[in-house]
Formats: sequence, C-alpha cells, structure tokens
Amino acid sequence: MPDQHSAAVVVGVGPIRGLGASLAKRFAQEGLTVFIAGRTQSKLSAVADHINASGGAAIPVTMDATHEAQVRTLFETVETHGLIPELVTCTVDYNQQAPLLETDCSMFKHLWQTNCLAAFLVGKEAAERMVKEKRGTIIFTGASASLRARPPFTAFACAKFALRALAQGMAKELGPQGIHVAHVIIDGVINGERALEQFPEFVRNKDNDAMLSLEAIAEAYWYLHTQSPTAWTQELDLRPYKEAF
Amino acid sequence: MPDQHSAAVVVGVGPIRGLGASLAKRFAQEGLTVFIAGRTQSKLSAVADHINASGGAAIPVTMDATHEAQVRTLFETVETHGLIPELVTCTVDYNQQAPLLETDCSMFKHLWQTNCLAAFLVGKEAAERMVKEKRGTIIFTGASASLRARPPFTAFACAKFALRALAQGMAKELGPQGIHVAHVIIDGVINGERALEQFPEFVRNKDNDAMLSLEAIAEAYWYLHTQSPTAWTQELDLRPYKEAF
Amino acid sequence: MPDQHSAAVVVGVGPIRGLGASLAKRFAQEGLTVFIAGRTQSKLSAVADHINASGGAAIPVTMDATHEAQVRTLFETVETHGLIPELVTCTVDYNQQAPLLETDCSMFKHLWQTNCLAAFLVGKEAAERMVKEKRGTIIFTGASASLRARPPFTAFACAKFALRALAQGMAKELGPQGIHVAHVIIDGVINGERALEQFPEFVRNKDNDAMLSLEAIAEAYWYLHTQSPTAWTQELDLRPYKEAF
Amino acid sequence: MPDQHSAAVVVGVGPIRGLGASLAKRFAQEGLTVFIAGRTQSKLSAVADHINASGGAAIPVTMDATHEAQVRTLFETVETHGLIPELVTCTVDYNQQAPLLETDCSMFKHLWQTNCLAAFLVGKEAAERMVKEKRGTIIFTGASASLRARPPFTAFACAKFALRALAQGMAKELGPQGIHVAHVIIDGVINGERALEQFPEFVRNKDNDAMLSLEAIAEAYWYLHTQSPTAWTQELDLRPYKEAF
Repeated sequence: MPDQHSAAVVVGVGPIRGLGASLAKRFAQEGLTVFIAGRTQSKLSAVADHINASGGAAIPVTMDATHEAQVRTLFETVETHGLIPELVTCTVDYNQQAPLLETDCSMFKHLWQTNCLAAFLVGKEAAERMVKEKRGTIIFTGASASLRARPPFTAFACAKFALRALAQGMAKELGPQGIHVAHVIIDGVINGERALEQFPEFVRNKDNDAMLSLEAIAEAYWYLHTQSPTAWTQELDLRPYKEAF
Repeated sequence: MPDQHSAAVVVGVGPIRGLGASLAKRFAQEGLTVFIAGRTQSKLSAVADHINASGGAAIPVTMDATHEAQVRTLFETVETHGLIPELVTCTVDYNQQAPLLETDCSMFKHLWQTNCLAAFLVGKEAAERMVKEKRGTIIFTGASASLRARPPFTAFACAKFALRALAQGMAKELGPQGIHVAHVIIDGVINGERALEQFPEFVRNKDNDAMLSLEAIAEAYWYLHTQSPTAWTQELDLRPYKEAF
Repeated sequence: MPDQHSAAVVVGVGPIRGLGASLAKRFAQEGLTVFIAGRTQSKLSAVADHINASGGAAIPVTMDATHEAQVRTLFETVETHGLIPELVTCTVDYNQQAPLLETDCSMFKHLWQTNCLAAFLVGKEAAERMVKEKRGTIIFTGASASLRARPPFTAFACAKFALRALAQGMAKELGPQGIHVAHVIIDGVINGERALEQFPEFVRNKDNDAMLSLEAIAEAYWYLHTQSPTAWTQELDLRPYKEAF
Repeated sequence: MPDQHSAAVVVGVGPIRGLGASLAKRFAQEGLTVFIAGRTQSKLSAVADHINASGGAAIPVTMDATHEAQVRTLFETVETHGLIPELVTCTVDYNQQAPLLETDCSMFKHLWQTNCLAAFLVGKEAAERMVKEKRGTIIFTGASASLRARPPFTAFACAKFALRALAQGMAKELGPQGIHVAHVIIDGVINGERALEQFPEFVRNKDNDAMLSLEAIAEAYWYLHTQSPTAWTQELDLRPYKEAF
C-alpha cells in the first residue's frame, strides 16, 4: 500500500518498550520510512538503530512537540527527504496526579501543553500537507480520562477531554477531504517501560493479561490506517480483557 | 486461527448484498463454518449457495431471532454439527420512522424486539457456550441512533440505546471470562440491497463514497475478532468519509 | 401559575415515603389537582388521604402503567373531571439484579416494560393532550444505569438507556410545540421506604447525607416545571453530596 | 439563606444585557453582596451602579481572569471586605470560528485560556476558601460545544470540553467536602448584547422564543445554588424551546 514516497511520522517516541517506539516499529515493518520524534536524542537513536537493524527505515528527529517552530521543522525535515507524511501519530502524553487544591497553574498548563497543544500542532502540520494529497491518517491517543474526569486526575482529564474534541472536530473537517482522523482511547495500563518506572510494584504484581500489550496497540493503529474510506472509525477504545471497566 | 471445530453464527441474514451475508462471506473466507440465520429461507439458501460455491462452508438456519426457543434451536444446531461458536454476530435490525404521536404501542414493541431483544437472546445463548471455552467474540450492531435520539426515529433510538447498554454490560461481565463483546456503530447508509429498496432515489443520487461498503464493514468485524485480548475494543464507529457527521 | 382546570398526573405511586407520593404532595402544595396512579389501591388511598388531609386535592387511580388501555383510561379520567394535565411524571421503576447468564427472557422483558414501555405509554397519552394546549411538562426518571451499563444491572440499564432515548427524542419533537420533556437522572439511593425494605441494613448504616431526600428530588421536578420556555433543561442529574461518583 | 458575611463572586461581567451582569443582579436580589469582575472598568461601573441603585450591593473589580495573580487579588478583595464567597460563577467565554488550517497557535491558546484556564484559576481560589467553610457553590458555564466538536468551532470545543472535565473532576473532589460544583450547558444563543453585536441580523430575524433569556438563565444558576445537598445537580443543559437540537 505505501508508495516509496510515503512516510510515517511518530511524535512522542521514548524508550524502546514504549508506545511511540512500538508504533514506529509496526509502521516500518509495512515499508514506511518512519520519522521518530521525541525530546531525548539517546532514546531516539536507540529506537532508530533497532528499526534500521531490523530492515526498516527510521530517521530520528529530536524536538519538543509543544513548540510550534519545532513541530514545523519536523515536517519540513520529512519534505527535505522528498517524502510525504501519510500516517502521523502523536502519543505525547504526560500525566501527573494531584488534588485540585494542590494543582498549580504551571502544572495545569503543562498538562494541557503536552497532552493537547502538542497534538494540535502536530495535527495541523500533518493536515496541511495531507489535504494537498487528499489522503493520509492522523491518530491521536486518549486515555480513560478522555471520557471521565475524577480526582486526582482532573487536570489530566481537562487536557484529554480537549484532545478528544480536537480529534472529533478535525475528523469532521478533514474526513470529506480524504484525511482520516482517529482517536484511540487506551483504557488501562500499557505493559511498557514507563509503567515499570512509574509504579514498578504495580506492574510486577499485575497479570500480563491485565495490561495492554504494545504490539496489540500498534496493531490497532495500523488497522485504522488501512481502513477503507467508506468505513472509517473516528474513535475506538482499547483495554485488556482482564480488567474491570 | 480458527480450529476445525469452530463456527461463526451470523444472525440476521437477508439478501446477498446485505450486511449479514457479507459478514458470513468474510468469516467463511477465514475457514470458519458459518451458520447463517434469518427469517426467509430463500434468501438464506441463496447466500449459503454463494458461500459454498466459493469454497466456504455455510449452513442456513431459518428462524426468527425474537423467539427465545428458535434462538436456542439455532445454537443447538451448531452443537449438533459438533461445532462450537467462536464468533457470533447479530445484525437483526429494523427501522421505522414516525413522530411519537403516530408511534403505536405495537410498533414501539416491535422495534425493541427486533433491535434489542433478539440481540439479548442471541448474546445469551452464545455467551453460555463461550464461557465454557473461555473464548469467543460476540458483536452487536448499532446505528447513529445508538448515541442520539431524534424524531422521527425516537422509537428506533430507544431500541438502539438499549442494545448499546446490552453490549456494554455484557462486555464488562464477560470480558474477564475471555469473551470479547463489541458494539459497532454504523453511522451512515450501507451501500446494499436494503437501502436500494427503501430509498432507491437516495442511493442512486448518492456518491458511492458517501455510503458504507459492505466489505469494509465486514473487515471491521473480522478485525475485532482477531484483536489480541490485551487490547480489546468495546465500541467503534464506522462511517463513510464523504459524509458530514 | 396553575389555573383551576390544571392537573398533575403522577404515575408510579406507592408508599407514602416514596418518590411518586412525594412528587404528588409537592404538586398538590402548588394547587394542582393530582391524579395519583399506581398498582396498589391501599397505597394510593393512603397517599390520597394524606394529601387531601393537608389541604391538597388528590384523586387515586388504580392501574398498571404497562397496559396501554389502562394508561388511556387514566388520562380519560382526568378529562372526566374536566381537567387538563399540565404536569405529568412517570416514576414507574423496577430493578432486579442478575448476571446476564441468569437473566431470563421474561425478566429482561419485564424490566423493559416497567422502566421504558410504561413511560412511552404515559408520555404519549400526555403529549396527545398537551399538544392541543401547546403547553405542559413531562418528566421521566432515570438512574445511574441510564448512563452506564454494568453487571449485574445490564438488563436494568438496557431499559434505562431506552428510557433516556425516549425522553431525548420526545423533547426534540415536542419542545417546539411548547411541551417540556425532561429526564432526571437519580444517581444514588433514595432515602425512602423502598430502600429501607430492599436493603434495610444498608440504609441504617448509611449517613442520611449520603442518600437523596424525597423532598429535594420533588423540588427539582417542580423547578423543571416552572422553568421559562426560553431556557428549558432536557436532562439533569441529582445525587447526594456525600457520595462519590 | 445568605448570612450577612456572604458574598457572590461573578467573574466575566461585561455589558448590562449580558450573562455576567444578569447573574450579578439575580444574586444581589437575594441579598448577597456581589463582586463583579471583568476586564472593562466602564462596563463594571455601569453594572455596579445599576445593582446598587436597585437596592443591591455590588462591588466592581477590574481584572483579567486568565492571570493567576489577578484572580487571587479578586478573592483577597472579598476577604478585605470581611466577606466569604458562598457562590462563585465564571462566565468568561470567548468564541472564535475558524477551520483548523486557519487556526493559529495563539488563537488556540487564547481560546483555552479564556474558556478553561480562567475557570480553573477562579475555581481553585474559590474552592480554597469554601473548603474551610464546608459550603459554597461554584458554577461553570458550558456551551453546545462542550458536548460535540465540529468545525469551525474545533478550537472552541477543545476549550469547552476541557472546562467540562474541570467541573466534573472538581464536583467529585469537592462535593463530599460540602462544595457544590455545577456545569451549565447553554445550548443556544443568549438574547443579550453580545449576540446583537456579533450577529445583529441573526438576532433581529430570530424569534425571541428561539433565544435564551438572561433572566431565565440566571434563575437556573440561583436554583442550583439553593439545591439541597442531598440532591445536587452536577450538570444541566438550558435551551430555548423553539430551537431544534
């Protein structure tokens, strides 16, 4: 399906056992040149090396997705390579828990910038290029908090609700122009490096079947990209079967 | 994936260019023996012949899905063949438009029976068998009216809202037992025989890209069935890219 | 506000310390003649006596709201008294818990009949009369299960989801004709006789502030009835402040 | 109900025929000293003069609600008067339409700051004071876009979705502490000065019954404030009966 001028842009790449890296690997397997973008050069290099060693093509771009100019540069880099972004994902995601009275203004802003503003910037740059081609897929990543706000995740939910609106509005605007915009709600803990770092005991005590596998999530993103335009999905949820919801 | 004792049960099969038939064809392609159930024997025979002629295995079962005993018999028929249902769909669907004041009690009941009660009966029989195997997929089919009620579709929406609750409650109860229950919201007109019959001019004037293709819908159902249990989808929407929503 | 020809019809009246009776008392206080309808004559008499003794006017009508003819008779009784229904509520509500596999067909139907069909029948009879007057209020009563389905309340949720669709569709259809249709979601345990009967220990151990008071609920219904048509509410939730949600 | 030390704080006051001013008038009628906050001193003076001339007590505070320090100062001003905020509303609201590709980063940020960040800042300062008193009401103001995002209102919807999450999360956190947090969804055009300025022809051609009256909205806010804690509403919608929805 991907032609030789096509690229994927995966924004929000961190550790190898992370969501961004897993998406990048999956897209590279399908023959897309994958631009992997994130803040930490060493992590990007590791992921790029891994993909390139497996026969894929990955190009790391160090950047901060909350900065408009850096997001633009990322997409210009794709063009510099003579490529067109056909599949763009943004999994920049930052969560911090606090009761409202302990949520300061800068934290509230930061959560919005990482979870929503970055997606807006990435989505807009992607859309600008895709409308010319009349094709392309943009996938955003929500969480349980996209649907329900509750303490101590209120500030996080504010950002995730906003992101959901972004995906919904973009889908309605860009769909008729041939651009598929989807929102994936990841309702559970991802069995990856971040969970292991943030709450190691939780992960160790948890059945693997009660966490989302990175490969399974990546499969869902790829499926969304390959959907026929006559039956596009705007929103789907993903959760491990063992977890109550 | 399907072992030789596995079957699909597709309830609500009508014309060849209809949703039920398309699901049956898709599942048969994957090697599942497909039980196709519906009210009209001649239509079932045509679909079964088509599938069997294409190298698949289809067994027609004439029945009315709103009758408890007939639904039970359907699943007993599967057992009689030495098979176990691993994938069950219910696309029984009946729509009738009327302002509330012209909606009589029997119409209100009939819409509920076809759109909700049938799904309950099918879902329960399927679940009873699947819990013993600790695996299986049950997929229900919603519509735009599953999310928003508006005249002259109020009675239809009542039934479709109820069906959505059924899917959600069953997913929560059965998921941890290994049964995947999903709800597909078809938000648009399906490019099939029924639309052609019910509003021929509408369909003829309509761009093909503004209707859902049967094959694309069937692909989504099959994708749901093949999802890894660590990342199951409970609900997804499908709509043609050209349609505003 | 109520003129002397105006009546309220409260369907689903049981014990004095119940929701139906509390609504009836509240409406009677405002000068409306209240028709109190329910299945048990002795309960209706007790409520009617109580209201009449307090200076209100209550007329008991024994009937089963799931029977079309009996609902029609109720509204004809109002007319026989030379009155016009200006405020109609239906709080017929029946809940039964069961896992799906233990929910039989008759229970599934019964929950739908009591929680949804009764409301349809009452709402339709009310609307038929109100559209001629170009005014009137119809209020339906939802529950937590109106928004989320979960075991062992799946069958109940199916019925309550359906009821919510009914209220939404009716509001859209009848609003422009001057009829206010509202849906109140009671998200918690009502501090009344039914809770005391069904789970006495729960109620005794529960802080009063963690249950909804009957008077507070009745106040909300009356408020909805008195809203200006330029700012009508279609849906509101009510819950006790002490309860997590 | 209000004791003599109680105050209302109304943030987002503009023209006399505006939502903020109408809320302030309504609260002043009930005997609350009302702090009216907004960016334009002349408008605040006009509103304060109007309220004070009608026997109410209004104190204007010029400020920008998107600035943390200015919000804090507002609440400190209330304290300087020896008063405690018992009812706080934030109706700061800014809407701008644009397709996504014409939405620049600064506009996206600005919409979030006015529609969401301001509410967070106001809500937090209010909550800090109210939790000490174990009582108080905070009401936020949503729009149609709080529930559905669509072009050209995507950026506005992002902000309004976020605000809804804020209200929901705060309600869950603060409810059990005796603070009532509510979210009012205004689904339609308010019959006030702003609509007249922004789309004069629309308003002139529009039936008054197809717009929300300011007084009716203010009534709803006051009702929310007076609800019994045993039956609090977290979210309600308001719309004119003549408008389809």
